Amino acid sequence: MATVEELKLRVRELENELIKCKQKQCAVEDAQSQQLHRPKIDKMSAEVVDSNPYSRLMALKRMGIVDDYEKIRTFTVAVVGVGGVGSVTAEMLTRCGIGKLLLFDYDKVELANMNRLFFQPHQAGLSKVEAAEHTLRNINPDVSFETHNYNITTMDNFTHFMERISYGGLEEGKPVDLILSCVDNYEARMAINTACNELGQIWMESGVSENAVSGHIQLIIPGETACFACAPPLVVAANIDEKTLKRDGVCAASLPTTMGVVAGLLVQNVLKFLLKFGTVSYYLGYNAMQDFFPTMAMKPNPQCTDRYCGRQQEEYKKKEAERPKVEAVQEAEEEVVHEDNDWGIELVSEVTDAELQAASGAVPDLPEGITVAYTIPVEETEGGETVGETEQSLEDLMARMKKL
Amino acid sequence: MATVEELKLRVRELENELIKCKQKQCAVEDAQSQQLHRPKIDKMSAEVVDSNPYSRLMALKRMGIVDDYEKIRTFTVAVVGVGGVGSVTAEMLTRCGIGKLLLFDYDKVELANMNRLFFQPHQAGLSKVEAAEHTLRNINPDVSFETHNYNITTMDNFTHFMERISYGGLEEGKPVDLILSCVDNYEARMAINTACNELGQIWMESGVSENAVSGHIQLIIPGETACFACAPPLVVAANIDEKTLKRDGVCAASLPTTMGVVAGLLVQNVLKFLLKFGTVSYYLGYNAMQDFFPTMAMKPNPQCTDRYCGRQQEEYKKKEAERPKVEAVQEAEEEVVHEDNDWGIELVSEVTDAELQAASGAVPDLPEGITVAYTIPVEETEGGETVGETEQSLEDLMARMKKL
Repeated sequence: MATVEELKLRVRELENELIKCKQKQCAVEDAQSQQLHRPKIDKMSAEVVDSNPYSRLMALKRMGIVDDYEKIRTFTVAVVGVGGVGSVTAEMLTRCGIGKLLLFDYDKVELANMNRLFFQPHQAGLSKVEAAEHTLRNINPDVSFETHNYNITTMDNFTHFMERISYGGLEEGKPVDLILSCVDNYEARMAINTACNELGQIWMESGVSENAVSGHIQLIIPGETACFACAPPLVVAANIDEKTLKRDGVCAASLPTTMGVVAGLLVQNVLKFLLKFGTVSYYLGYNAMQDFFPTMAMKPNPQCTDRYCGRQQEEYKKKEAERPKVEAVQEAEEEVVHEDNDWGIELVSEVTDAELQAASGAVPDLPEGITVAYTIPVEETEGGETVGETEQSLEDLMARMKKL
Repeated sequence: MATVEELKLRVRELENELIKCKQKQCAVEDAQSQQLHRPKIDKMSAEVVDSNPYSRLMALKRMGIVDDYEKIRTFTVAVVGVGGVGSVTAEMLTRCGIGKLLLFDYDKVELANMNRLFFQPHQAGLSKVEAAEHTLRNINPDVSFETHNYNITTMDNFTHFMERISYGGLEEGKPVDLILSCVDNYEARMAINTACNELGQIWMESGVSENAVSGHIQLIIPGETACFACAPPLVVAANIDEKTLKRDGVCAASLPTTMGVVAGLLVQNVLKFLLKFGTVSYYLGYNAMQDFFPTMAMKPNPQCTDRYCGRQQEEYKKKEAERPKVEAVQEAEEEVVHEDNDWGIELVSEVTDAELQAASGAVPDLPEGITVAYTIPVEETEGGETVGETEQSLEDLMARMKKL
């Protein structure tokens, strides 16, 4: 039988143990909450101290690359598709200090995504937009996020998507500044294309081939450049989405390298476009097998099947005709997009579907529904008359160097 | 005065509270430990299920890109410098399932690094190699890691570095398969160059310019290609490390885009080299302002100041002379590195320092110690005879298409 003294001792022991336990719990929770945040920063500073997350970006001004880097905070970008390319795209924009990001995706994180950057194994099972927002807020709490966990191609969602890109800007009621397509299927690309043609919204397309070794980015200005429906499917060969492929026990290949490069080229083009520096690329391809980077520009197709594309083309022509000559010269200097482009090329009429078909000759047998978006140049047999890849690039370089 | 009954009641209450507190603590710790790991995977499988982190990589075999993807697990790569390029490089290799990674860096994570991919704000203050290992192990526990938190350029550390690259392979006692230089200063590059020339170790160099808008990767095979001491400092202009610059309240600019692209091109070249597919690039540049990607190859300089480079050149010549003709043809087909290269170019004698100096004319005033590694092609005034960037690439593309 316990005495009063013994019981009092026991109470004191238990109280001490409980205090220790609670202290430990607090410490764990404190550590967790500290881990999740850095304080918000009101104004971007160029001060060179270890604690300034913007010093290396603001240095772009001192280096003479960007005139007004702080302007990045005024822009809103919508990223559609938060997979291998979209997630890295969103992370780059977040780290650059973009004003607001809208993320659209209906997929969940899986361990099968771990061969690409960004998502981590403990996030498996979470929706991609939810997992991405959590990580991105932690990286940069100065960015505003708006996420939508749905498929933009269904009727209701498409209407909502249209509404958000029209009114979901940093200042509610204003449109977004740019839409980035980082989706993996034709249907979603066509949905974005339809929305942008109707709204006259500038967007950028991106894609990676199913064999993982090529990709591209493309700037689309409705009425001014070819829209996604204008051009032959040079860039996306498979009209079947990943889910369909997986059902047959087949999946596309992917590499963190190719997807990282495509995301990097895409966001670089976004920065050049928004902050007005360098030359914005209309189309930039990446062939990883040969380290070949084709560029081009495509005029819109007057016979395009998208009726809004036709209307945008008419409006663009009208605007161009109305523009006084003198102003046009001034604008050409300011608008980076217009530099060094003569719009003289219509790929529509230059390359036929049959030619494109023939071009994929070097590719081995592929599962149904999978075709490569880019062609691998066929290696010449001995005595062939074409110049090898390396030599050609080398000549190019030497010519440039001599020119300088 | 408390009675025995009251005290007993208090003891029971406290015991219950303590149990609850401990349970909660366990749950938090469990959640943390679950977050940190996925189970190890003994054998890479191509099975297409959501839980297989290697399905999209193994699909490279079915796509006809890589013959033996599983071989990736037998390779060891050393990454020197775990900053903006090195951290992403290590992450890509980890996600690809490399056998072993050795990481070398002496720096700490700072909030000022948050404008590049990989590190997160809660890691500020940790050593870069420690923080990187923690994140990378979590992403892929199948990879072996070895980290060294020191500066390789001091005498003792250099000796240890030499030892680890000589014997720190996946199978202890074997050398590493490849060294990747992802450092930000000339001294560290020279240290790696010295080590690799002495050991005859193949390595790849990488770099990003101080104005953040260009970068490069380079494959160096001692005796066979130009070493870092053979060539003029085409690729790294500043002979001063970041620490010195920061002392003067000045820092180099950097962008997650450029660093992500360079890391992607570097690891892509590593994969092509190790897994023998595509064409391995000897030198690949990235000019972000114009989306221009120069390639070239450089012969070693017979007058190179590094005496081990001279010895490696002698050995290479001997080996080449001894190699029977027939075998040489067979090997040329197998060894990807040798394809399409005629080694006819010595940049050393083609471009003088003065020409390189003159080439940087378009660059604005920069702080002392900062110069750009790449030149921005000077824009031609009207009536100039050179062909614009876009048109040239376009012609190139059209020629290729017609060829196909």
